[in-house]
Amino acid sequence: MALVSAMTSVSELGRRAKTASRALATASTAAKDAALLAAADLIEQNVGSLLSANARDVERALAEGVTTTVVDRLRLSEARVGSMASGLRQVAGLRDPVGEVTEGWTRPNGLRIEKVRVPLGVVAIIYENRPNVTSDAAGLCVKAGNAAFLRGSSTAIESNRAVAALLREGAAKAGLPEDCVVLVEDTSYGSAREFMRLRDVVDCLIPRGGPSLIQAVRDNATVPYVIDGDGNCHVYVDASADLDMALSILVNGKMQRPSVCNATESLVVHADVAADFLPRAARALEGVRLVGDDVARALVEGMEQATEEDWGREYLGLALSVRVVDDLDAAIAHVQRYSSGHTEAIVTRDLLAAQRFTREVDAAAVMVNASTRFTDGEQFGFGAEIGISTQKLHARGPMGLRELTTTKYIVTGEGQIRS
Amino acid sequence: MALVSAMTSVSELGRRAKTASRALATASTAAKDAALLAAADLIEQNVGSLLSANARDVERALAEGVTTTVVDRLRLSEARVGSMASGLRQVAGLRDPVGEVTEGWTRPNGLRIEKVRVPLGVVAIIYENRPNVTSDAAGLCVKAGNAAFLRGSSTAIESNRAVAALLREGAAKAGLPEDCVVLVEDTSYGSAREFMRLRDVVDCLIPRGGPSLIQAVRDNATVPYVIDGDGNCHVYVDASADLDMALSILVNGKMQRPSVCNATESLVVHADVAADFLPRAARALEGVRLVGDDVARALVEGMEQATEEDWGREYLGLALSVRVVDDLDAAIAHVQRYSSGHTEAIVTRDLLAAQRFTREVDAAAVMVNASTRFTDGEQFGFGAEIGISTQKLHARGPMGLRELTTTKYIVTGEGQIRS
Repeated sequence: MALVSAMTSVSELGRRAKTASRALATASTAAKDAALLAAADLIEQNVGSLLSANARDVERALAEGVTTTVVDRLRLSEARVGSMASGLRQVAGLRDPVGEVTEGWTRPNGLRIEKVRVPLGVVAIIYENRPNVTSDAAGLCVKAGNAAFLRGSSTAIESNRAVAALLREGAAKAGLPEDCVVLVEDTSYGSAREFMRLRDVVDCLIPRGGPSLIQAVRDNATVPYVIDGDGNCHVYVDASADLDMALSILVNGKMQRPSVCNATESLVVHADVAADFLPRAARALEGVRLVGDDVARALVEGMEQATEEDWGREYLGLALSVRVVDDLDAAIAHVQRYSSGHTEAIVTRDLLAAQRFTREVDAAAVMVNASTRFTDGEQFGFGAEIGISTQKLHARGPMGLRELTTTKYIVTGEGQIRS
Repeated sequence: MALVSAMTSVSELGRRAKTASRALATASTAAKDAALLAAADLIEQNVGSLLSANARDVERALAEGVTTTVVDRLRLSEARVGSMASGLRQVAGLRDPVGEVTEGWTRPNGLRIEKVRVPLGVVAIIYENRPNVTSDAAGLCVKAGNAAFLRGSSTAIESNRAVAALLREGAAKAGLPEDCVVLVEDTSYGSAREFMRLRDVVDCLIPRGGPSLIQAVRDNATVPYVIDGDGNCHVYVDASADLDMALSILVNGKMQRPSVCNATESLVVHADVAADFLPRAARALEGVRLVGDDVARALVEGMEQATEEDWGREYLGLALSVRVVDDLDAAIAHVQRYSSGHTEAIVTRDLLAAQRFTREVDAAAVMVNASTRFTDGEQFGFGAEIGISTQKLHARGPMGLRELTTTKYIVTGEGQIRS
């Protein structure tokens, strides 16, 4: 099995992915599933060589003095490799979105119109140091009938190359083109820029990574893209809230996994319950750095002054901004002003407050009496997700297999013409 | 009623549209319809002043020596103004897409998830010389709950200003913000570029115009956009086709309205029927310039040689390229290679050929035994359209009110947290 050479140009690699995407678009679900299952088997059979390739990446990264966070993300273990294989098997078990007739109707002139789900074509993924993105993203792309065109970081290059080779081998075993999965091995800045601008090749670009990667896409991409953006997620505790429930939702949102985009970053409390709720919240959030406005600070000892920057900040760690508001209007106005459009939650027993909050707050997901942590493809029941879109075009919220497709109209007549 | 000043900056105008969009997002259908109906009445009551404003635009255009096509597009008549008013009334009569629950389900933990249709926010329209786009586009945007942020050409500035003023007055009469409709009156190149890059303001940009406008958007826009692109539409006449039907579909596609994007631009004929079909087609297409390959030319006297450029060309006029192919594979390969992704048609009695063509051809719409001219919002039953998307993200094919919306997840629980 020939590996794509590191010397091959980005545009040539793209052209190969495009060609493969045509075959993949009409491939059977059985063939696509067989490719994923074969790749899962190969990954398990090659744990040793995958870990060796990864060890070389880790060694080089340590020599370059990268942060522990980078090393944590980069490092594979037997368990992590096992998760890659089981992830592929899980995706193989999901329902194929391709071919679904989402709507259909007949016109007065007898034309029958069907809207059918079809693959996007080539889905490009640009990502950072996690080698598991190589198999997770490729698995989802291929299952939805798309060629996966991948560009990871230089830090993870040996790991990515090893994983991609097995995915390509899996495709070939299932009778699909190897180029269903194409990895760009040139990890220069120039190649990233070129990758984001291959208009004739890339049908959709999805960045998986932090703010600097997102910014690079916004600044450089000329292909259509879907942004998996920040989550400055608020929990608003209404005057009528069940305060025990509010506490549980707040603690879960902030502390259960603080490093992820659907973690809670800001607490907004109605003045009527602030004196009761905030001291309890501060005790329950032990270890969390709290910053707040003057009213909040008067109620919680040791709370620091929140700056303007704090209100807009995605901490991704054990910190929380706290705002006390006089009414629902002020709560909605604050959330609207600082929301990143990811997930916003209200805790309330007041039906009208819940209705207004869900209607007026503009975000991918609005929670009523539930943790912000639920905005997630698995939690929504999609089986797996490629990311969470914080933009409004194409897909908004968790993106599963369905969001990796587009639609086509098929119109059937018996010779109809327009008069 | 204050008109927006021509001196106001593009970003300030955008900010006003954004503010108005928040009020509009939660406005009732009744209020939005009242705004459109009031604007329709105002347009009818002010035919005289609209025609005077337009006459000044036409006079200036003639003095500048523009082409007759430009003047035709620019010039309003009583009938055209009447169409603007009736168009707004028609849109007021359409079903409001906002608030539609497109899906809903309950998770094992009891969380109830609803996917609800909501407005995009600010929809920006950049267009050329047709003043009717001002009212047509604004009507659709407002009905779908979006502020319409408009930027027409300098040629039509007086007409656009007059129409926009009446739309704003209609909004005010219905108790909605005037800034539901905002026209950029600075028609410099710099303002167009700024307009396409107002990321904090524009949720979706839709260009309405020819190839140079589309190219300008591709090159300059940093806001999300939907392209209403070219239509190099093919009709493939299969070996099994009913040739009378094929002739009728071909003539309708080419001649009924040659200047539009869903007109037929290329004929592909199976070799088995070419000798029978092509001479008949040439007679029926009298007045159409035919260019073809050698086989086609041998069958039709006077047919010119098609160049490589011809195969990819959207003539938008009385010209047609003609290709003879040996089999369905070659037909599909030719269409795939030169398709602009708009509309492709097959005429056949062979079920397998229809299945393969609809499956393998990658376009917004694939027609079986019907004219390419049917790819159109009204013909599809959408009531009206803002354009026809030839891209794959967000919307593909005719875009009606629904395509001017996005969705939001509303998740309701009773205190659920993630474990």
